[in-house]
Amino acid sequence: MSKLSSEGLEPIFHPRSIALAGISISNPHHWTRVFLEALIEFAFEGPIYLVNPKGGEVKGLHVYRRLQDIPNTVDYVISTVGAKVAPRLVEECANKGVRAIHFCTAGFGEIDEEEGVRLETQLFEASQERGIRMIGPNCMGIYCPESRLSFNPGFPKQSGPVAFISQSGGNAGSIVRQVGWRGVRFSKVVSYGNASDLNESDFLEYVAADPDTDVVALYIEGVKDGRRFRRVLEQAAEKKVVILLKGGVGEGGTRAAAGHTGALAGSQATWDSLCSQLRIIRVYSLEELADMLVTCLFMPLPEGRNAALIGAGGGNSVLIADEFEKRGLRVPSLPEGIRKRVREFSPAAGNIISNPLDYSQTFVEADKLGEVVSIVSRWQGIDFLAGFLDLSGFARGEMFSSWVDAMLEASQRSSKPIAIVLQVGTVPEDMQELLPLVKKFVASQLPTYLSFRGAATSINSMLTYNENHAGRLKT
Amino acid sequence: MSKLSSEGLEPIFHPRSIALAGISISNPHHWTRVFLEALIEFAFEGPIYLVNPKGGEVKGLHVYRRLQDIPNTVDYVISTVGAKVAPRLVEECANKGVRAIHFCTAGFGEIDEEEGVRLETQLFEASQERGIRMIGPNCMGIYCPESRLSFNPGFPKQSGPVAFISQSGGNAGSIVRQVGWRGVRFSKVVSYGNASDLNESDFLEYVAADPDTDVVALYIEGVKDGRRFRRVLEQAAEKKVVILLKGGVGEGGTRAAAGHTGALAGSQATWDSLCSQLRIIRVYSLEELADMLVTCLFMPLPEGRNAALIGAGGGNSVLIADEFEKRGLRVPSLPEGIRKRVREFSPAAGNIISNPLDYSQTFVEADKLGEVVSIVSRWQGIDFLAGFLDLSGFARGEMFSSWVDAMLEASQRSSKPIAIVLQVGTVPEDMQELLPLVKKFVASQLPTYLSFRGAATSINSMLTYNENHAGRLKT
Repeated sequence: MSKLSSEGLEPIFHPRSIALAGISISNPHHWTRVFLEALIEFAFEGPIYLVNPKGGEVKGLHVYRRLQDIPNTVDYVISTVGAKVAPRLVEECANKGVRAIHFCTAGFGEIDEEEGVRLETQLFEASQERGIRMIGPNCMGIYCPESRLSFNPGFPKQSGPVAFISQSGGNAGSIVRQVGWRGVRFSKVVSYGNASDLNESDFLEYVAADPDTDVVALYIEGVKDGRRFRRVLEQAAEKKVVILLKGGVGEGGTRAAAGHTGALAGSQATWDSLCSQLRIIRVYSLEELADMLVTCLFMPLPEGRNAALIGAGGGNSVLIADEFEKRGLRVPSLPEGIRKRVREFSPAAGNIISNPLDYSQTFVEADKLGEVVSIVSRWQGIDFLAGFLDLSGFARGEMFSSWVDAMLEASQRSSKPIAIVLQVGTVPEDMQELLPLVKKFVASQLPTYLSFRGAATSINSMLTYNENHAGRLKT
Repeated sequence: MSKLSSEGLEPIFHPRSIALAGISISNPHHWTRVFLEALIEFAFEGPIYLVNPKGGEVKGLHVYRRLQDIPNTVDYVISTVGAKVAPRLVEECANKGVRAIHFCTAGFGEIDEEEGVRLETQLFEASQERGIRMIGPNCMGIYCPESRLSFNPGFPKQSGPVAFISQSGGNAGSIVRQVGWRGVRFSKVVSYGNASDLNESDFLEYVAADPDTDVVALYIEGVKDGRRFRRVLEQAAEKKVVILLKGGVGEGGTRAAAGHTGALAGSQATWDSLCSQLRIIRVYSLEELADMLVTCLFMPLPEGRNAALIGAGGGNSVLIADEFEKRGLRVPSLPEGIRKRVREFSPAAGNIISNPLDYSQTFVEADKLGEVVSIVSRWQGIDFLAGFLDLSGFARGEMFSSWVDAMLEASQRSSKPIAIVLQVGTVPEDMQELLPLVKKFVASQLPTYLSFRGAATSINSMLTYNENHAGRLKT
């Protein structure tokens, strides 16, 4: 069997058969069960084989005592066996003709002990020698909805245009779940951990060439080969929108990155200059990454930075304008002609007919909001609109519900891009009542933000990106 | 009746009787009903009189057609009558011996029209002439749990040490609700709107002298008299911890502030220098204000900036360390002696025994977390601890629940201040399942944060404040 090149990772993302080595037989809540649960939930189409020296049966599937006992070929192995026996598993896999192994388990080079480093080297050498590609160790592996492959049974089953290459499994899961309910779907997600064999450059090269991927997100703690990474990143940035979150920027963070995935983090300045040279969109937290993905997928590119803010609440109006202006967007004054036209058909006190436009009247005369949006959106002085509301002021779901419906309808009448910019807060009772209503915006494919700052930051980044790439934004 | 001085606002915060002028008779969902609902919910002890020219009955209370028809004295009037009839109400109040009126309704000086400005001037002159103090117009008025006075039936009924003086009613409500469930309680909250008569300086002077207030939060769009405000602010900052959120910092925000409360916002530089000279804690968003209040009330002052971060998840560990270090805190490396002691009794792979300390083992051996916290907290190299977790990775409530219990117990064994630092995310299903569990930390009076950044920002601000005030932090 020929060794897979990094361009040919296809079999890893589309295995025909999978074996789960090391799954717990006795404890149904054991963490090793998650891969089986996910494959069943996703209805993986090929055969799934379970392997554990104890034998037995799990969820109606026979448990083989050894890999070699499996009567058919096995493409891909997901291993949850302990670090100490991992090198032996590589031998067994080689004998069985396995093409790739995902080592989930930790306890290798990332722990600050000789034994771990030795085991990881042994693992790497064994797999290289036998021509088996390896993901990990110390990671969650692959989520590829098209192949019905997932490491979390709760992930969305539909595919989408985003690839996420994440050194951390936790951060990968966090992002998929955070943006999943906001409408973002993925082509491929990889949690690659210690990157002993397959590393960030291999996966980046693969997704850069992937026709199903338009946007590439990266969570990187450190790179294995700086020169190659730079070259691959440059090529990727020419073909896709690339967003980067660098983990490990301070002393403690760098130490944590070394402890987490054994990564050499590189200086902050190196990363700054890399991103600005290659025109990568840099984000600084998981929230920013989530907002940026929503922006790339659902926010049509405005022609410029001038925003019309239409919402409800005077204090909110002030704070959202501050957030937008602090982060590089503009909130130009509405000319008297526009203000007069709005005031004519909606003269109620409590509305501030300006920009921001505090249209609290929505709650009384919801049907008029569409006309307001239509008039304002046609003014040449603005490039996009944002419908805003601070949910933490809303104890009552029916009020928010009527605002959602009014804003949804009004958004249809906007002649320019329109974003929904909420400030969600965290009052548990509100969240329970209000967040499900937010899904209506998501279902209509409107770009939906959950904080004023988040919206401003990512829309501004999108505009900057486009300026740098002279209109090359694809999504 | 003598005119109330600004030092003698006592009757406004403790009225013996209240009349609600302008309450809707026919529509039980009308916004004017909220004050009655709140007074009933809070069991206001004095008589509540309702006034509407239509007469009738609301919730079993007689509705008087005119204020003068009320058979007894009335201390305080909450007015929801329209702007045009407001000046006439002042006359009626004067004849009735009313001491103060809260004008809730908008449509005065804040709207960009001659008529509104004229009406507000008329209102001010009438109230001055008749010796009646006025809150507003265009605001929500007073929340004072001790007096059973509230503008929202859902606010906490217990009192606490925080006074919040907010030009915006929406932002006042947002903060009370956002921090209410996180354990913060208030002495007095004022939404004062256009500040036509009683303004920010009057209220600040009052709460600065209030023995029930330790911490004063301000949301200010603009001030009426800069010199007086500066003097009052300086005096307040000598007696209380003062936190300021300035709304209206950019062009659009300033315009929004003018439109919202008619405020002249003042330059950003003026505010910067004011805060740094007077050693006011400045915050830049409602979230920061909320976190700062939680910090002032529940975070014991650490002796320095060195944090030990103990949580679960490698990717999280990296990101929380980055957030802490970016915002002025330190995450020192654990000495080998400490690491060895922890590793001795908890050798499991997947734990990174460093700082951050990725103790994912909590989920398997919850009882050991207390010992870890105890060992680390006694190390002289750190000043405080943070127990951290990213909730968006948790689909399963029972896992988070066991972490909460373990961390609660472990917090008892810390010999240094300990904060709970969560990253809550927004997945609706998570919020529903997990946020109620967070209340356990709140119930134990632990400082509980909902984002890594929020915790880092506000703990750093607290330390800076204390350095500037040479140990004068009271709370």
